[in-house]
Formats: sequence, structure tokens, C-alpha cells
Amino acid sequence: MNLNSFTQNKKKDVKLIVIGGTADVQKNMFVYEYGNDIVIFDCGIGFPGRDAFGVDLIIPDFSYILQNINKVRGLVVTHGHEDHFGAIPHLLKEVRIPIYCAKIVAELLKNKLKEGNLLIGTSLNIINPDGPSFNLGVFKIDPFRVNHSVPESLGFAIETPQGTIFHVSDYKFDWTPTMDKQFDIPKAVKLAQNGVIALCSDCLGATSEGFTHSEREIQKTFDEYIGNAKEQVFVTTMSSNISRIKMVVDASSKVGRKVVIGGRSMDQTVEIARRLGYIPYPKETFVPIRGCQSYAQDKLTYIVAGCYGQQGSALSRIAKDEHKHIKLKKGAAVIFSADPIPGTVDLVNELIDKLTLAGAEVIYSAVQENLHVSGHGSQGDHILLASLVRPKYFIPIGGTISLMRAYSNNMVKIGAPQENVLELLEGDSISFSRGMAYKHHELDTHDVFIGSQVDVVSPVVLKDRKTLSTDGIFVAILKFDREKRGFLNSAEIVSRGFVYMKESKELIRGAEEAIVKTLQGNKRKSRDWVAVKDEVEKTLYKYFQKTTGRTPLILPVIVEA
Amino acid sequence: MNLNSFTQNKKKDVKLIVIGGTADVQKNMFVYEYGNDIVIFDCGIGFPGRDAFGVDLIIPDFSYILQNINKVRGLVVTHGHEDHFGAIPHLLKEVRIPIYCAKIVAELLKNKLKEGNLLIGTSLNIINPDGPSFNLGVFKIDPFRVNHSVPESLGFAIETPQGTIFHVSDYKFDWTPTMDKQFDIPKAVKLAQNGVIALCSDCLGATSEGFTHSEREIQKTFDEYIGNAKEQVFVTTMSSNISRIKMVVDASSKVGRKVVIGGRSMDQTVEIARRLGYIPYPKETFVPIRGCQSYAQDKLTYIVAGCYGQQGSALSRIAKDEHKHIKLKKGAAVIFSADPIPGTVDLVNELIDKLTLAGAEVIYSAVQENLHVSGHGSQGDHILLASLVRPKYFIPIGGTISLMRAYSNNMVKIGAPQENVLELLEGDSISFSRGMAYKHHELDTHDVFIGSQVDVVSPVVLKDRKTLSTDGIFVAILKFDREKRGFLNSAEIVSRGFVYMKESKELIRGAEEAIVKTLQGNKRKSRDWVAVKDEVEKTLYKYFQKTTGRTPLILPVIVEA
Repeated sequence: MNLNSFTQNKKKDVKLIVIGGTADVQKNMFVYEYGNDIVIFDCGIGFPGRDAFGVDLIIPDFSYILQNINKVRGLVVTHGHEDHFGAIPHLLKEVRIPIYCAKIVAELLKNKLKEGNLLIGTSLNIINPDGPSFNLGVFKIDPFRVNHSVPESLGFAIETPQGTIFHVSDYKFDWTPTMDKQFDIPKAVKLAQNGVIALCSDCLGATSEGFTHSEREIQKTFDEYIGNAKEQVFVTTMSSNISRIKMVVDASSKVGRKVVIGGRSMDQTVEIARRLGYIPYPKETFVPIRGCQSYAQDKLTYIVAGCYGQQGSALSRIAKDEHKHIKLKKGAAVIFSADPIPGTVDLVNELIDKLTLAGAEVIYSAVQENLHVSGHGSQGDHILLASLVRPKYFIPIGGTISLMRAYSNNMVKIGAPQENVLELLEGDSISFSRGMAYKHHELDTHDVFIGSQVDVVSPVVLKDRKTLSTDGIFVAILKFDREKRGFLNSAEIVSRGFVYMKESKELIRGAEEAIVKTLQGNKRKSRDWVAVKDEVEKTLYKYFQKTTGRTPLILPVIVEA
Repeated sequence: MNLNSFTQNKKKDVKLIVIGGTADVQKNMFVYEYGNDIVIFDCGIGFPGRDAFGVDLIIPDFSYILQNINKVRGLVVTHGHEDHFGAIPHLLKEVRIPIYCAKIVAELLKNKLKEGNLLIGTSLNIINPDGPSFNLGVFKIDPFRVNHSVPESLGFAIETPQGTIFHVSDYKFDWTPTMDKQFDIPKAVKLAQNGVIALCSDCLGATSEGFTHSEREIQKTFDEYIGNAKEQVFVTTMSSNISRIKMVVDASSKVGRKVVIGGRSMDQTVEIARRLGYIPYPKETFVPIRGCQSYAQDKLTYIVAGCYGQQGSALSRIAKDEHKHIKLKKGAAVIFSADPIPGTVDLVNELIDKLTLAGAEVIYSAVQENLHVSGHGSQGDHILLASLVRPKYFIPIGGTISLMRAYSNNMVKIGAPQENVLELLEGDSISFSRGMAYKHHELDTHDVFIGSQVDVVSPVVLKDRKTLSTDGIFVAILKFDREKRGFLNSAEIVSRGFVYMKESKELIRGAEEAIVKTLQGNKRKSRDWVAVKDEVEKTLYKYFQKTTGRTPLILPVIVEA
């Protein structure tokens, strides 16, 4: 760029705003902004934690996008994982934005958009990782290949008026990838050669030493187990993990086993992967799930969802002998080709137990090595990328607070000044100006909870569910006599999840007496029903605290009689 | 034993019944029975899993014990961990049984029994691991020292009319224990020399290769971190882990730091450990928690509870700056000397994040080795014990189903016949008769849930809480007019945790209409209120299924007006 000092002085800041994707490893969404131009990177879903009662998924807070929609030039997707592109249908329901993504992401997205009747009218633009840059407003964007656990994952060099920023979401360096090409180091180096103001990159593996292993190391394990199996074989992995699926098909074909794909999401993935040539096997390699029981079971390998122990998943139903089409045979081998992610350890162990009880020989990472490798780089990968790009500022993304800190410590060890590693929380931003970076808190975001019917669950409702889940509810129905203009000296009580009513007659009687006492005297005639309800609630709260130590949700209702 | 064939023929079976302690790693309780004699091993609590709404702990099902109380000769405790002795007060509340345990268990138990006014009248008998055997009914019991993460842990050889059974709960071989003596191999071998019919032993580490490391290996890590710390040091570990606490005191004393014990349970443990000589430091080594802020903070080491990320624990409160007496300073070191147990991984990670945000340098196992070693043996320990005892039958206890299976596989590898490894679930039993063992399902047990006020939580209530937690409650109040002898054509609606009432007026109106429609016609005059309620519930169920896809707890109530 040749800018004279005049225009240089008139340049505005480039701003990076985190809508989601730091501190909790999911619902990724990053905004780059300059003047009247905004480009968004990723739009993923999050998975509810322990406290999300009846919530199926979480989406990012779109407020900032919607408020500034006239500035938005496009949404770039880094790769085809739910936590990076899964919330796009929710966003497109609100507003249309052109999407830029790799071919495989486009295919995966099309299925989603079709389901929501959103495909028509959506501008889907395919990114060619070996092709030229593309411009979104003032931003010039150059893609390059990275390795991850899904093909066609991309990193980006973003040329901005305040210098080049590298945005490299989930990645690792895999020198022997099974279906993708290697991380395009020459291109990345070339894009970095005029200097890089900041590297915004994945820090999830910041506590793992060395380099993350190659996906190819798993093939031998599959060959061995599937080759030697005497009965059915089941393999479970993430339904998005195409290379894992291909390796299972490879190992099965070698020994004349056909493959059954169990589950809709995995079926769709395999269909797309076959169409794009990632799983180069004819239709005959696969046996439809419907009717698979009529095949010789020792000639079949089942690839099924459920590697995180999800209730209702194919594998979970198979373990309980509740699957419509698949019956587990005694002596079957069940291979878990995934490590439990945080929050799923218990579920996975329970599922392994159930399968063992049902007669399966279960092969999982505690009893067998090389069943799974991570798609995320380790400390070695992080150091290599930093050494290739040589940024001035480091911005860890895609990890928790402690993983960001571990990443910072690693970068400081290889010479980065402590103050140049910027750990951002959701809603934080960085302003880049004249070669410097300044951190702010830009906006307050809140999680948006989506319930089973793809509707938003109110935080008020969630709070009530939390109380209900541990202490139940106590409803006191007070009767107001219209003619006598006063409350009756009695109350109807219903309660659920608090105490077992049949066994707690005394407690309930005590509560009734407490209510009646409250209603007596002046309050009996009161027409200030809100005050009466408050009073009754307070009385019951104190009564239950004293007698049971618990505080159910107390709900006084007044009925006119 | 010299028995002639006559008495040999008249011998009854010896039975081992699992009340708890297989398949789910906790609430250990094992019954050995012969004719009119029963001896119980352990009586521990369990910790509620994901689905235990408002349940604080689980105790074993005492039914079998209470039904056969006249046979019970005593309760033997293997070691001082809650999942092995924590339910004793609950049992003693029902019935008095003589307790046999090591000195330290007796001390820990005394505190518990005092709190429940159960100490007086309880027969507490101290076991000397180097002393002679003791008899409980027909059973001759010989204790021997084993290593574990609490001192004075014991294994037992039980001489029965059907041969010698080894009962070895949680154990490992530690050649360099920090406060205990080594596993008493000579005594164990001697007790096994006349043949062992069965080895009933801990299988928790069955998927870990090699031998479990020695507790002593951690000392160096403490010395280093505490020696080099410039600010406050916090160490968190299980409050029962006396040797870990001693090592922290050792490391602190070397560099002139005094120690603050944060938390009541840990305080009691330290007090008992000091009294028994396990933590041989004078009172002056410790600074009372009240007023600890007036000491130079860089001369203090805090040992606090909260290593599993428990909400409300000392460390959790410190992280949130809500602790009454302790303030975290920027730059403080926080050492996690424990690995998260299943189900606590998320909580621990969240706590590490909070502490990091608060300015602490957190040292945990993902970033530092040798912060924790297990108290449970690994495959090597299991093989060694089997080789010393040479039992005919193998009974893995204290592990999950898949850990029992892993143990079985290991034993088969070293030559045990597959059919001689007996995996038991709760309620299963083994009958020993003439050198043979037969497995049965003996009785049906059920978990007993204890809520916050040490009362039993009914399964009905738990089921309701589960529904309430995901879908909330919908209460429909129907009014029956006594004079007109019919239901009014209206209903009062209250709902919590289902939909946000203010934003769901249309949904609620629809529900009201559905109710009114149901009440109209013949049903309006009905005096069969149960039928009316059923009808209304069904109608609402269908209505909500159709409109929201959710099924809250529906509660029709009839009020006479």
C-alpha cells in the first residue's frame, strides 16, 4: 500500500470484536470492522452445560450484527463443524448475509438451509483455498489450507487498512493427512511476508506437549481390530469426522466387510463425502440400515453416532436393545474412536458399561492406544504457526480462560512480550491503530438458549427450572369469598417435587395452619391481593426453611369463590 | 482344618452378598454370611450423579441387614474414606452393631457419631493390623496393612467354614509410603499359605498400566512450587488425604511459611492426624483462619477444600472473592493436588478459569506432572496381589462394569480361568460350597437418596423433579360451583419453568379454551372429579405436545366455589 501521510492520518481503527468463541470453546463468532465494513468469521452453536434445563443448544447473541446489518459484507466460515457454522440458519432466519465457505461446508450447509426453507435467496460462495483473494468491503481475504478433523479447513490472512491479521481457527499440522493436503505453509508464509499485526488462532491444545499426531496413525488400529474381529464390528465417532469414517470403510473393505451407516446425520455426511470424492467407494460397499439384519452379521461393520454417550443416539439405543434395525450380538467389538469431551465423561462410561453388560467387547482409549487423535494442534503446532507468521500481537481463541493462559505462557516462553498476548472474553474487542493494539470491553453479550422446538427459552424460565429441579414447587390456593368480602379460613395445597405428599401430611397441615394464621386478622378483608400473596409466600418460606431446610418455589394463587 | 467327612457334609454354604460397591465405585457394603452369622464389610455413602435432583448423598439399602439383624456379629471397616464408612451413622440410627476398625477410622467416626448423638452405646473396637485375629461368629478375621491414600488402610483374610477369603478393598503397593508402613506382604502371604478360595479386591485401576506410583513422588513438586512462590500459596486436595497435607506442611515449614487450614472437615482431619502423630508439627505451625489476613500473606500456605470444584467449597468462594476470611492476592499460586473424578471435570475447569481470571497462577495436572498419584493400584499391583494370594476365584470390587471386565481380562492374561473371575452387580451373591463358587442374583437393592436435611427423598419426588427441571409445571385450577352443581366455564392458570407467561398469552388462552371445551357437555355436571382431572390432563397434554412439543408436569386442581 502506498498511502501518503495525509490519508494515513485519516485512517480509522480496525476493530476485532468477540461475539463468541473464547472462554467457552464454542458458538464461535468473530467480527472484523472498519468504518462501514464488517466481515464476520464463523457462526456456530454451543452445547448447553449442566445448568441448562431443557435447553438443547445455545446460539451467539446476534444483537450487534443486527444493529449493524447495513455494514455486513459477508460471513466467512473456517470449517464444517457445528460450533463454527451450525448457527447460520438461525442468523439467516433474521437477515440475509452472503456466505463464503469451502465446498464441503457449502454442501453441509445446503442440507441445513433446505430444512429451514432458507436455501433459496441465500448467496453461497465457494472459497478456493488455492485460488486468489476475495474482497469483502475494505478487507482483502486470502484463504489457505490448514489441517483439522474435517476436510477443507481454512485459515485466512485478512489485509486491513491497519495491517494484516491472520485468523486461524481450529487447526493442526498433519504431515500425512488421510484425505486432505498438508497445511499450506508456503502460502501462509508468503501472505505473512510483509508483516503481520496479529495472529488470532486456536489455543485448545495449549496444555498438550509436542505436536498433535497424524490422523493416519489410527489406520493400523482399525485394520487390526476390524481384520481380526469374529463378529459384528461397531465403530462410533463424531458424525462429522469424514477421515475416520473413510478409514473404517478402508479397513472393512480389506477383509470383505460391508458397512452400515447408522443414523441420519452420519448418513448425510457420508453421502456428501462420497459425492465430493472423500470416500471413494461404490454404493455396493454400503448396506442400508433397514434390513441389515438379513446380512451375515460377521461380515458387517456398523458406523454409528453416540461416541459422547448421548442419550437417544444409535449406539445408546443399541446398548439398551432398543434399536429398530440393529441388534447387538454377543462377542461384537465396539470401538470408540473419539475421546469424551468435557461434560460427557460420565455418559460415555455408562454407555461402555451397558455395552459390556450386553456382551460386547468394548475398545476405548483407556484400554487401547491410537483410537483417536485430536484435530487441534498442541504446543508444538502453536509454536510452529507463530514462527511462520511472526505476528506482533497474539490472540488465542477457541479455548477456555485457562487454555488462553497456557497459550500465553507458551508464547512468552518463545519470546513474545507478555503484554502482546491479548486474552479476550466474549464482548471484548481489540482496536488496531498505527501498529498498536488496544483492548476494550465493547459490548455485553448473553447466551441465547434454544429449546427442543427451536424456540428461545427465557432466562426467567430457566431460573425457575433450576429451583424446581432441586426443591420442587408448592402451590397454595387461597379462596376469596366475593359475598363475604374476605378470604376463607382454608387453603388448597398442591405440591410436586418437594415432598411426597402422602407421607408428609403433618408438614402440609402445618403449612395450611401457617397460611390461615396469615390470612386472619386484618389481612382477611384485604383487597390488596399482591400484598396478601407476598405475605403468604414469606410465611411459607420461613415455615419450610425451619421444618425442612428447603425452599421450594412457592406459588400462592387466589381464586374468587 | 481337620474335619471328618460327616461334618464336612453337614457344612452350609458361605455366602458373599454385594449390598453396594460394585458397578458404581461407591457406597461400599459387603455381607459375608454362614448359617446364623453375618459379618459386614464397610458401610459407605455414594455421591449423586447427574440425575439426582436435590439429592446430597446416597446410602446403601439396609433392608437385608435389618431383616437379618439377629445374625449380624459386627461391621468391619477397611479404611477411613466416606464411601467406605460414611453411612455408618445412618445405619446406627436404625440399629446398633459393633464396629471394628483402625484407630484413625475410630477417631474420624467418633466425630460423626457425636454429631448424631450416636457415640454413647456404640461399641467401637480398634483393630491392630499387627495383632492377632479376631472372631465374629464363625468367621476368623486376620487384618494386614495395605497402602492407600489414607493411613491405616487394611486388608483382611477371612477364615470361613468353606475356606479362606481375602477381602482387600482400596489398596496399592507403595514401597516408599510417606507416613504408613509398607503393604504387609509377609503377613498376607502367610495368611494365604493354606490356600485361598477367593480374592475379593479393588479393580478401580484395572485400565492403568504398570504400578501406581508412590505418594512420595509428589514431595518434590510441593518443595519446588512452595519453595519458589513469591506470594500466597493455596493447595487443594481431598480433605481425607492426610499424607498430602503433611507434605504441604513439610514443604512450607522448610521455607518458613505457616499453614492455614481452610474448612471444617479438613480442620477435623488435621486435628486427628496431629493427635495420632501423622502430622508431627506443633500448634504454632498453624495460623487460625480467623484473622489470617493480618499475617504477611507471602509467608502463608493455605490448604483448602474444593479440589473437585465443589460449589460452596472454600476454594470456590475464594475464587469468587466471597470467602469470609481469605482474600486471594494477584500472583498467588494455586496448586490442585488431585485429579478431577468423573462428573467433576467441568466444575474443576470452571474453577481453574475463575482463579486464573482472579489473577492466580494455577498449577494443575494438565500443565504440571507429579501433582497427584492415585491411592488405587494399577494392573501391576493387581497382578502382584493375585500372585501373592493365589486364589481360586477372583472377585473384582470397587469398580465400574467396564473396570471389572478390564480386571477380568488382566487376570485371564496371567492364567486365571475365565470362568473363575466373577463379576458381581449389586444384589448379586456368591455361594461357596466344597471348593466351588456359584453366582446368583440374591436380592433387589435400591438406592436410598438423602436430601440436604438428612431425610430420605422419595423416588416419586425425584421423578417429578426431573420433569420439572426440563419442562416445568402447568397448574390448571378448575372451579366447581356447589350451588349450581357444575364446573364453571373457566380456569385459573399458573405455570412455572414451562413458558414465560407474559410472552405466551396466546398459548395460555388456547389452553384455557381447551380446558373449557373439555368441561362442557356432560362432564360439567360430573361428580367424578378424578375422571374430570384425567380428562383435562389428557387434553392439555395433547394441546402442549401439538403447540410446543413439550410436556410439562400438568396438574389439574379442583376448587369448590
